[in-house]
Amino acid sequence: MTQDATSAAQECIFCAIVAGQAEASVVYEDETVVALMDLSPVTPGHLLVVPRKHAVGLEGLDGATSAHVWSVGHEMARALRRSDLRCEGINVLLCDGEAAFQTVFHFHLHVIPRYAGDGWTIKPEPLDRERSLLDRDARSIRDAIASTD
Amino acid sequence: MTQDATSAAQECIFCAIVAGQAEASVVYEDETVVALMDLSPVTPGHLLVVPRKHAVGLEGLDGATSAHVWSVGHEMARALRRSDLRCEGINVLLCDGEAAFQTVFHFHLHVIPRYAGDGWTIKPEPLDRERSLLDRDARSIRDAIASTD
Repeated sequence: MTQDATSAAQECIFCAIVAGQAEASVVYEDETVVALMDLSPVTPGHLLVVPRKHAVGLEGLDGATSAHVWSVGHEMARALRRSDLRCEGINVLLCDGEAAFQTVFHFHLHVIPRYAGDGWTIKPEPLDRERSLLDRDARSIRDAIASTD
Repeated sequence: MTQDATSAAQECIFCAIVAGQAEASVVYEDETVVALMDLSPVTPGHLLVVPRKHAVGLEGLDGATSAHVWSVGHEMARALRRSDLRCEGINVLLCDGEAAFQTVFHFHLHVIPRYAGDGWTIKPEPLDRERSLLDRDARSIRDAIASTD
């Protein structure tokens, strides 16, 4: 762990939970992740999958850990559907960066059970973006992929 | 493929794109997934990672395909950050079920670049849920996990 990462971990609520130094309602844990109830759920059953290793976001998280976090999220979603919480849908959400609603800077995946009329809304205001612009966006991203291949 | 799945695929826009029968601005493809620009992006650069195999949601998607969809989403997010679209954050979002904003019933992962002031909002209205209720929620989910171990 770098000095920066050590310093971040010392002040990080998820690192404290992983280390058993802070209270949490744990749903599942293994060597790589801990899944726990969100302290400020947007619906009952809202949980988080947190890698034990401190990483801020997608840029710092290694691929194997990332895939495992997602796989556990998938299993948690299936469990929520079967549980007596009786949800009708699931949103899985990652917030990477302050501009994307991230507030705790230790990577975590939200698994949010949904219920009809639960009041949770997204206001995306979709753009009317023509094909030539979509093609240009696609080219920008392909160029970025190619530049690190 | 079951008869139901065949029937669903025949009317499915993502199956048509995967089969090369509908237009798309493709960013990346491999044997398992296609990544393409969302036709109604909520921000410029909004893309979707779509498994080639038709599955409605998390319940019908096998674990290996699911993990690969996520891993490609992770790479697409990194590419977006490096691209000349110059985004400041990323949301990765799965909508599983109509109650969770799903509108196209072929599994797909949204990768949404975020920009300061882009107008995209989530109104979660977090609950004030006390520890005893969080513990009860956690128990319900653990029971559901255990019931299929």
